[in-house]
Amino acid sequence: MHAWLRVKGREFRSRLLLGAELYDSAKLIGEVLEAGGCDVFITTLDLGTGRSGVALSELSRFVDVDTFTWVGTTSFARSGDEALRTARLLRSSFGIEIVKLDVRDVANLPDGPATVTVAEQLLSEGFAVLPLVSAEPALVTRLAEAGCAAVRVVASPVGSGRGITDEGALRSVLAVATVPIVVECGIGSVAHAARALELGADAVLVNTAVAIAPDPPGMARAMRHAVLAGRLAAAAR
Amino acid sequence: MHAWLRVKGREFRSRLLLGAELYDSAKLIGEVLEAGGCDVFITTLDLGTGRSGVALSELSRFVDVDTFTWVGTTSFARSGDEALRTARLLRSSFGIEIVKLDVRDVANLPDGPATVTVAEQLLSEGFAVLPLVSAEPALVTRLAEAGCAAVRVVASPVGSGRGITDEGALRSVLAVATVPIVVECGIGSVAHAARALELGADAVLVNTAVAIAPDPPGMARAMRHAVLAGRLAAAAR
Repeated sequence: MHAWLRVKGREFRSRLLLGAELYDSAKLIGEVLEAGGCDVFITTLDLGTGRSGVALSELSRFVDVDTFTWVGTTSFARSGDEALRTARLLRSSFGIEIVKLDVRDVANLPDGPATVTVAEQLLSEGFAVLPLVSAEPALVTRLAEAGCAAVRVVASPVGSGRGITDEGALRSVLAVATVPIVVECGIGSVAHAARALELGADAVLVNTAVAIAPDPPGMARAMRHAVLAGRLAAAAR
Repeated sequence: MHAWLRVKGREFRSRLLLGAELYDSAKLIGEVLEAGGCDVFITTLDLGTGRSGVALSELSRFVDVDTFTWVGTTSFARSGDEALRTARLLRSSFGIEIVKLDVRDVANLPDGPATVTVAEQLLSEGFAVLPLVSAEPALVTRLAEAGCAAVRVVASPVGSGRGITDEGALRSVLAVATVPIVVECGIGSVAHAARALELGADAVLVNTAVAIAPDPPGMARAMRHAVLAGRLAAAAR
């Protein structure tokens, strides 16, 4: 399996990224990541308590955490300033230098201008940055030119499970992208994940659809095959 | 892998059925069926010439044809009478007793009433019948009660690649079905195949999307993973 992203000396090979914020069991996180064939572990810190959702000491009982590439997410931040502080805390606490940057507005949608500002600041501080934005070519280009390692593009509102609501917009992003594109938010079904890869996305990030399934590891395994199906289809057409 | 259909002493295990009518190379058919992990070989006869598209003697050079369950299709028939004659010719020529029954109208859409009539006739002659119909619960129930082994339901117009245009209709069919349901026609993408299985269909039949791909075996392999993804997702939710 070729790496689709190389950053900070790490290789991202699995094209399925699974969020880990919605679980309250470290054992379940371990099972989900294994079933999904994931090689990235996404963690965060709650600025209020300084803690991540599941105690990392607990997680290490179930997951060989060193084998994963650690990515810190700012998905709980609701302002650019909170996102910045979260990223810095993740580095000082865990040495995490790869940031899944989410700066969302009050409606939980990406805030493009604020994202650009925070991304540039984090880049200047030496972080690798994977920002989340709407499917707008100009915004994606701007962030790629600023030095972001990859750009994450919204499929539909987070948690909506609606899939890729505007394939044309995603295609236009993929047509101009000079960095890997991750499709994220609203991936509610294996069909959505397969479609994203089939259209040419480099990876998908899935969270709610797996976390709320009655059998999260089973759904993670399903997503793994969906991503493979999409990737094979993209290569065959 | 459990069988999803048992009929005439044969077990259908692969949930991916691939049409073989659109190829002019026996070698390619063999590669496609192998890449798709298929266990069914669908053949037909042209009533005009009494021949199938690819000479079966040619096919046996590339495929261990005995390992496949042979199904005869009437997809070239344009009337109930033609369908009946095709089925009888497939039995007398090849001993085929499992008929993929297509009775389509001039617009190439399934003709429900004619399908019921021909299905009942073929059943009375001892055939196992897999008829193609629109996603209408009453029609599916009628054919199941008549003794059809499985019913094939249209996702969207044949060759359109539009996927499942009416998920509600398909759900209503799946809710009442007492026999296995195969989703077919318009499966243009791995996303469509995955979605059909995720919704609870027992199998999908794909033809054009694989046959017209620049790399048909690659697309067959993609479809195989899509079907697996959909099946795993259905079990996990």
